[in-house]
This record gives sequence, C-alpha cells and structure tokens, in this order.
Amino acid sequence: PVASAQPGLQSNEVKREWWHIERLKPFKVDPSYKKMSFISVKGNAFVDEKGKTIVFKGVSISDPDKLVKDGQWGKKHFEVIKSWGANIIRIPVHPIAWHQRGVEEYMRLLDQAVDWCSELGIYVIIDWHSIGNLDMEILAHDMHNTTKKETFNFWRTIAAHYKEAPAVAFYEIFNEPTLYDGQYGNTTWAEWKGLMEQIIDVIYAQNKKAVPLVAGFNWAYDLTPVRQNPIAREGIGYVVHPYPGKRPIPREPKWEQDFGFVADKYPVMATEIGFMKGGEDENLHDDGKYGPSIMNYFHKKGISWVVWVFDPVWVPQMIKNWEYEPTDQGKFFRDVMQGKFKYDK
Amino acid sequence: PVASAQPGLQSNEVKREWWHIERLKPFKVDPSYKKMSFISVKGNAFVDEKGKTIVFKGVSISDPDKLVKDGQWGKKHFEVIKSWGANIIRIPVHPIAWHQRGVEEYMRLLDQAVDWCSELGIYVIIDWHSIGNLDMEILAHDMHNTTKKETFNFWRTIAAHYKEAPAVAFYEIFNEPTLYDGQYGNTTWAEWKGLMEQIIDVIYAQNKKAVPLVAGFNWAYDLTPVRQNPIAREGIGYVVHPYPGKRPIPREPKWEQDFGFVADKYPVMATEIGFMKGGEDENLHDDGKYGPSIMNYFHKKGISWVVWVFDPVWVPQMIKNWEYEPTDQGKFFRDVMQGKFKYDK
Amino acid sequence: PVASAQPGLQSNEVKREWWHIERLKPFKVDPSYKKMSFISVKGNAFVDEKGKTIVFKGVSISDPDKLVKDGQWGKKHFEVIKSWGANIIRIPVHPIAWHQRGVEEYMRLLDQAVDWCSELGIYVIIDWHSIGNLDMEILAHDMHNTTKKETFNFWRTIAAHYKEAPAVAFYEIFNEPTLYDGQYGNTTWAEWKGLMEQIIDVIYAQNKKAVPLVAGFNWAYDLTPVRQNPIAREGIGYVVHPYPGKRPIPREPKWEQDFGFVADKYPVMATEIGFMKGGEDENLHDDGKYGPSIMNYFHKKGISWVVWVFDPVWVPQMIKNWEYEPTDQGKFFRDVMQGKFKYDK
Ligand SMILES: [Mg+2]
Ligand SMILES: [Mg+2]
Ligand SMILES: [Mg+2]
Ligand SMILES: [Mg+2]
Ligand SMILES: [Mg+2]
Repeated sequence: PVASAQPGLQSNEVKREWWHIERLKPFKVDPSYKKMSFISVKGNAFVDEKGKTIVFKGVSISDPDKLVKDGQWGKKHFEVIKSWGANIIRIPVHPIAWHQRGVEEYMRLLDQAVDWCSELGIYVIIDWHSIGNLDMEILAHDMHNTTKKETFNFWRTIAAHYKEAPAVAFYEIFNEPTLYDGQYGNTTWAEWKGLMEQIIDVIYAQNKKAVPLVAGFNWAYDLTPVRQNPIAREGIGYVVHPYPGKRPIPREPKWEQDFGFVADKYPVMATEIGFMKGGEDENLHDDGKYGPSIMNYFHKKGISWVVWVFDPVWVPQMIKNWEYEPTDQGKFFRDVMQGKFKYDK
Repeated sequence: PVASAQPGLQSNEVKREWWHIERLKPFKVDPSYKKMSFISVKGNAFVDEKGKTIVFKGVSISDPDKLVKDGQWGKKHFEVIKSWGANIIRIPVHPIAWHQRGVEEYMRLLDQAVDWCSELGIYVIIDWHSIGNLDMEILAHDMHNTTKKETFNFWRTIAAHYKEAPAVAFYEIFNEPTLYDGQYGNTTWAEWKGLMEQIIDVIYAQNKKAVPLVAGFNWAYDLTPVRQNPIAREGIGYVVHPYPGKRPIPREPKWEQDFGFVADKYPVMATEIGFMKGGEDENLHDDGKYGPSIMNYFHKKGISWVVWVFDPVWVPQMIKNWEYEPTDQGKFFRDVMQGKFKYDK
Repeated sequence: PVASAQPGLQSNEVKREWWHIERLKPFKVDPSYKKMSFISVKGNAFVDEKGKTIVFKGVSISDPDKLVKDGQWGKKHFEVIKSWGANIIRIPVHPIAWHQRGVEEYMRLLDQAVDWCSELGIYVIIDWHSIGNLDMEILAHDMHNTTKKETFNFWRTIAAHYKEAPAVAFYEIFNEPTLYDGQYGNTTWAEWKGLMEQIIDVIYAQNKKAVPLVAGFNWAYDLTPVRQNPIAREGIGYVVHPYPGKRPIPREPKWEQDFGFVADKYPVMATEIGFMKGGEDENLHDDGKYGPSIMNYFHKKGISWVVWVFDPVWVPQMIKNWEYEPTDQGKFFRDVMQGKFKYDK
C-alpha cells in the first residue's frame, strides 16, 4: 500500500510490512492542462510570471470530505464556480476530515480538485481549516482539533506534493487564529509570528513557488501587529476575514486601521467574507450595506477576496440547493465576479 | 450525536457528519436543588457568599468509571458519605478512564455526581488525577498518561460546563506533581508555576467562580517554593498530600516547614490524607499517632482535608465492603467528621 | 493483564480494570548466563569492569518485528552473528513497530534478544530508530514517526527494565538526527544538545551503568559542534554513520575533521557503516576503497563500529538469503571481525 510522507495515520492498516510503505508520489501536472502561470509576490501585489498583477476573486467550497458525503464531489461543482466568474477556489481542509479519511485518501480528493482546477485554469488555496490557539493546542471544536506537529507535517506534505502545480498557488497556514478572550489560552503575536515563520520555512524548504498566507488574531481579523512586527519572510500574503459583525457602519475607517493599511505594503487576501439575512450568527448579519461597501473598499485597495461559502447548508450559504440556485449573497458576489457590479468612482 | 467541546476523542464515532457535532451543553442547575453558595477565597480561608469561613472535611471517592464497573455508581454512594458527616467529595478523574469512556460519556457521569451532590448540599472537587511531570509529559503509569494539550482542554471543558454550578467549587489542576528523583525528567518550580498559571488563565476565562487548587512536587507534598514564589493568580488554594510516611514523628514541626506555613497566608486543602495497618506501601503505614496528630494540626491551622479513599479495594481503604462497613481509618475520620473527635486544647 | 510502565499503547485492551495494570517487571539476569562485565567510559575508550578497553565490532540486525514477520526470529540468528566474529549487535527499534506490536509485546522480543545475547556473551545496542527532527517532531517517514513525549518514555522504560543486564551496554538515543536542508524544519545544536541531555538525565535516573550514545546532524554524520559544545554529561559515547557517499576519496582528512577528532577525547562508535554495488542509494555505493580505508582509519583511531545491516532485503545487505550466504560487504566485514583482515602498518 502507498501511504503518506509521515503523519502516520494509516499505520494501523499496514501492519504487515511497514518497511514497504511508499512515500506519496508528487502530483503530476498533466501536459493536457491549460498552461497556468505560477503566482508570486511583487511589492503589495500577487503577480503572474510576466509580472502582471492578478486580483483574485472567488469562493470557498465546503470541505471535500463533506462534498463526497453529500454525493456532490465532481468536476461539475468546479465548473459551476468557474461559470460564476471566479478565478480562485479555496479548499478548507478540516483536521477532523483529514483524520477520518486518512492522509492518503484525503490527498486523492485534493488531487482530483487540483486536476479539475488545472483543466479549468482556476487557482486554488489550500486552507488548513482550524480555529483557535495552535501554540497551546487549544482549538475551537472537535472539527478543528490538531497539533503543532500535525500542522508542520501537513504543510510539509502539501508543499512537497504540489510543488510543480501552478494551480495550487496559495497555502493558507491556519484559518482563524484566536484566543477568544483567553478561552483558548494565551500566546503573543511575537510567538505566533515565530510559529508561522517555522511553518513557512518548512514550506519553502520544499517549494518556493507557492505563496504562504498568514492571518492575525480575532478569528483572522486583526492585522494591526503587522505594522510594527511583520512576518520576517519574503513572498507571503496576509489574510483577513472581515465579516459584517466585526465593525459597525461606517466600516471603512476601521477596516483601514485593522487590516487595510497592510495592503499598502504587502498583498492582502480576504479569504472569507460573506453575509446573510437572519441566522444565528450575528457576525454574519447583512445590513444591506456590507456587500457594496466591502467590494468598493477592496477594489480601491487592490485586495483579493473569497466568499464563504459555496454550499447550501453551511452559513452564510451562496447556493440554496444542488441546482446551484444562488442565495442573496450568492447572486450579489456572482454579479461582481461577472463584472456586473458598478464600483464607485 | 452530541460530542464535547474539543478533545476529539469521539471523532471516530461520528464519521458521517462531523459538521453536526454539537458542543457540550452547560450543566443545568435544577431549581429543585438545595441552594448552595459559591465558594471563594478570602485571605487564607475558603468562604461562602456571605464571607463565612468554611473548613472542608470529606472523602475522595474512587474514579466514577471504577464505580460503574463495580456496579456501585448511584446516589446511595453519595448519601452514605453525607451521612458520615462530609461536606465535600473529591472525584478523581483518571486520564485513562477519560480516554476509555470518552469525553461525552465521562461528562455524563460527572453530571450525575454533581446532580446528587447538589441535591445533598455537598461540595465537589474535580481532580485531574495524574501523577508525574506534566511539563515533559512523563507520567507515572498508564492510568495517569496525559499531555499538556489534553490537560488544557480538560480544564477548559470542565470550567465551561460547570460554571453555573456552585457545588463544583474546586478544580484540582494536577493531582500529584513529582519528578521522582529525575525518573520523570526535570522541571523547575518556576516552570511548573508558569504551567499552572496558564491553566488557571484558561479556567478563569470561562469561570471565575470556581477555586483552582495547586499542588507542589514530591507527590503534592512540598510547598516550600510558595514562600518565595507563589502562584501569581488570585483566588486559588494550595494542595498537600501529607501521608504518614512523608515525615517521622514528631511530624508537626516538619509539616509547618513543608506546607503549614502556607496556610498562614493562603487557603490550604489536604486533598489526600490516610493511613492503614500493613499493606505494601510504607508511605501509608499507621503508627497510631498519625490520625489524631494531623487532625489537631489541621484544626489549629484551619486546613481543610479529604481522606483517600472511600473504596474497599484502593488503599488505604475507608470501607471494608459494599455494606460500607468502615475500616480503622474509616471509623476514625467518620468520627471526626461527625464531631465525635476531641481536639487538643 | 501486564502492561508497560506508561506509554499507554495498550490501554484499549485493558478497559475493564485499568487500576490493575501492572508495571513491566525488570529484566531478570539468569544465573546460568555467561558472566558479562558492565561497560563504561574511561577517557576516550569503552572499558570493562577491570578497566580494559574494548573495541566493539559487530552488526545491526533488522527490526525484531520484521524478523518475526519473516519467520526468522530465533536464537540461531544471533548465533550466526556470533560465529561471524561480532562482539556487539545493534537492535533498531522502529517507532512504527513499537506502536503496532505494543509496548508489552515488543519488550518481550527485546527480552528474548537480550537472553540470547547474554547466553552468547555478546553486547547489545538498543537503537531508537527514528530519522529527522525530534525537536519539531518532523520525522522522515511513517516508520520513524514519534514524539518527544514518546521518546522520553521509551528511554525511561528501557533504562528501568534493563538496568541489571550488563549485555545491554548501549542506548543509542536517536538514530539519525537531520534537518534535511530545512525539509524537517529547524533546530540548533544547542537545542538538540539540551534535548539529548534531558533524555540522558531520564536514563541516568534509572540506570547509570549503561552508556548513552549521541549522534549529530546530517543523518548522524556531523560531529563538528562537539568541539566547542560537547554534551554536558559524563559517561557517554558519540555516534557517526560515515557511509561512502558522505565524502569523496581521499576520505580520511574529511573524516578526521567531521568526526574523527572527537575520538581523541571521547569514545566514538560508528553504529552504521556499509556499502554495496549498484542499488538506488548513491550514499551506499562502493568504490572499492571504502571498506579497507575505513577499517584502517577506525583501527588507528580506536573507533568501534557496527555494519548495517544483517538482512537479505534491507540495504546494504550483509546476507544474500536465509542460508546466511554473505554478500560482498558481508564477506568483507566478516573477515575483519574474524581477524583475517590485514591492517596497514
Ligand atoms: Mg513565492
Ligand atoms: Mg469562519
Ligand atoms: Mg475564585
Ligand atoms: Mg496518592
Ligand atoms: Mg556509564
């Protein structure tokens, strides 16, 4: 049997002759794929191999493991997203799904996604979808449960496997860092920064052609420490998740202080935005202004963005059902991606 | 299925739809319960909500998981203890039982205990019953095997779940810290103190109304470092386990140097005391003087105490059988709890 | 059921009454065994109890778990090695085999090996056969996957169990430390040294009569940091794995700089050497000079050595088949061990 590089999650299945476990083979870029450019960082922009700036606009799918269980895992899902105008898809890998499916099987799902995205010419963010304090290993919920060791080894596996695949442009190291007012213990930005730099070093030792993405505390909202103490590695981008509930109207001045100023110096990607009417989570509540105002703000700042979430169950939904009927936010962001939104002058 | 906040131990049972795992609901204080006061720290005393000092006297039961396997888990067990005069019951949660039963099921046992104790008006200590060096994660025996990560998450779970329950007054962070002359590796009091403070912070972020209890090295005997370097958090108590074998007669001057001096400034609870005739463990051997002398010493110092152990098999036993016939130490401490012991003038 | 001291790997098998799990009993030295001397360190030599220097020459077997699965586990295997002239056998314990077989069962295999070696008067190295960066817990492959916690507890278990067995003379703490140009993350010699000293302290707390062996980075090749910053513990030896591919001819001057200088001050054991014609691993390729030159170099420096590996499948092989027909390197090193090799004057 072929097993993964190291995490060892399949060891129990290969008791007979562990000395024959093969390493995971690198992902093969099929010659038939549309030619894609590797993405890198230049100043405060993401650029292609010719140095042309690309602003990414796209959606986050739900976890591939969920889509398989929903019976919706297939190229069609990606084709629909492409037809909505997206140039990027974020894939959230929940640690619990990684554990349950096993490294080898989970990587097969990611390989399929990367095949489909490569055929469609759409870029991919691999997102290690945990929430909480990785430093003390206090994570929000069973589904986010992981360790520093596992996270190091996850990125080592991903970076080694996809190093020749230009479609896999971004590695979002840790979805939403947060201490939750101490409920998840404590750490400092200096310690967190050190941990992110350790992981970036593991990535770069395998692959210098992908762009690591780093988030701040407050569930990936607060980038203020970057002003004084940025991540000491080249070629990275910063992440922000500016949901409606983070700040009251007018939001723009606060956005500027909280994360927007970073975009003047480094590339920034809002890897989660979204809104909905009703629902239990006040953080997501639409007030009618959020969508247009954040689109205008990002447009002005050159910030890339990804909507959460292209799923009919997880909130805030972009689709109502598996006929891909858009919700309100689905329709709104589809219009923007398709060039139908009028930005302010 | 309903699963716990995070430790992830049930992940394998909920493979189908991990995104539907619910968080553990907070413990509900039933309105029919006897009204109990929250306990807090004032100076060197444990006090109720009116500021009245309470000296706790009680017993440690065996692990709830053992009592279930023994067929003895039920309200009667707690009623007998109440009838013996105890105002507190210590519940030792062995990591191995927590692992084997799973977080959700184990919490159901604790909920039952807290229900019964609330009905009976008796206080509870939740005791994370490990032994050894948590800093290096070298623990005494399979049954004590845990990690820093798990310990952080255990206390986060307990503190969130029982924050409204006045009966659950005390959280004994780590039963018996010991380096065993280096057999369990090394750490310093400064490092241990830092680790305890991290855990207290996780507890207090959820619940400021419980009293964390902190022990010293030498199997929770040595509190001498507290003189120079106390735990830098308010509202806590210190723990000592002064078994007979720790010091030869006359013990009082040594007790005073080793832990008693702490009781002049902070509340102290001897969460394990006990003795027996014979047996393999010299640390427990009765010399006929231990019981009266430690009762007089604690009485003089205002130190609370809990006897190990209300079980007919674990040593030193307080009961001979499931008819609750007392052993020598059972009878002795029952007399004290029932006010039949004459303290020295 | 009898379970091990702590690692807890059998917990699931002993759910019924975990409070009856017994600790592993110490290994019993049978009075019928050949009387062997404990080995210790004196200056830069390994010496017996009379202070006589012993230079060790022997072979590494494959993992006992593999030999069991091959149907070749038995005293005969050790007798053949003895007949080839070896005075030491290295036993590589792969973490994956330790996990799969369970501590208790694996220790039974080690006990058998120690029984046979004791009967034959041959010394043993217990080798924790991991590869990579233990500090960040990024290991090379599934078979090497472990943690700091497990490694501490492994050595605690081994040191407690074999403390009365003179045959188990050497504890090779961690087979091949390497950062692989950052693929396994980063650590410094100072940090690695601290980690090794922590482990040596755990060992010495149980057993001061065994000799811990410490390797350097670059897959146990680079001992240059020992010049400025040696391990701050008495009674240890240093390890080197100088395979042919590490350095081009003439190798001696480089060997001297890379590890040989250490042998002037501390005892050194090359716990892996070996060569083969062909094969996929260039590091092992024979150029016809390696064998004689390294034998002469070690002879001059008093360096002990162990050949990798007495197995017909793992490379480089010493035997062609289970009739124990020697390969080229098998024949070469057998000749040396049997005194048939002529050292340079
Ligand atoms: Mg780059
Ligand atoms: Mg989110
Ligand atoms: Mg308090
Ligand atoms: Mg005890
Ligand atoms: Mg020694």
